[in-house]
Amino acid sequence: MQTFSSQDQAQWIELGGGTRRKIRSYNGEIMLVEVNFDDGAVGSDHSHPHAQISYVLSGEFTYHIEGKAHTMKVGDSIVVDGGKIHGCTCVKAGTLLDVFTPMREDFVK
Amino acid sequence: MQTFSSQDQAQWIELGGGTRRKIRSYNGEIMLVEVNFDDGAVGSDHSHPHAQISYVLSGEFTYHIEGKAHTMKVGDSIVVDGGKIHGCTCVKAGTLLDVFTPMREDFVK
Repeated sequence: MQTFSSQDQAQWIELGGGTRRKIRSYNGEIMLVEVNFDDGAVGSDHSHPHAQISYVLSGEFTYHIEGKAHTMKVGDSIVVDGGKIHGCTCVKAGTLLDVFTPMREDFVK
Repeated sequence: MQTFSSQDQAQWIELGGGTRRKIRSYNGEIMLVEVNFDDGAVGSDHSHPHAQISYVLSGEFTYHIEGKAHTMKVGDSIVVDGGKIHGCTCVKAGTLLDVFTPMREDFVK
């Protein structure tokens, strides 16, 4: 559990492929992370049982859920039901806020 | 359920006291809303069974959880366990992203 998370202190974790993640606030039920993408970087199609909301903090993305494409600009948001295959391509470098329920145990192991 | 939510199309709902809310993406398990505050506006102390994360999109806030104060600036985040009494005072006009699990049925009735 991490109650308060300062933007200044959270650290980027390099994920490869021009992407990196910051773990932000979480408890057992909900977790906020930031994911930063270089121009053209890809969040490969995947699924997980957690429900997820993505919000575009900066940049521009093409987001796919079960094959349906959504163009996402700053301030746009999308929800992904648990188990649905989703991914994105970064059209213009920037950052997504991703929020998961329950929290992603796999991100803190 | 509202899968994709465009920043341009989401509407502010006036809540009074210098605060207003936009309902963004949600399903049954998770809901994103924006709450905008005028300078000095107060989010009164309250609690709900939903777990919540707040993220400062703009402005500055003093956030209280069970009497403990946190100064929150742009990019800072905080998690509130379900049932905990929390509230905030807006120090500099701006917007919080609030994410709830499960979704807030009371916001869409």
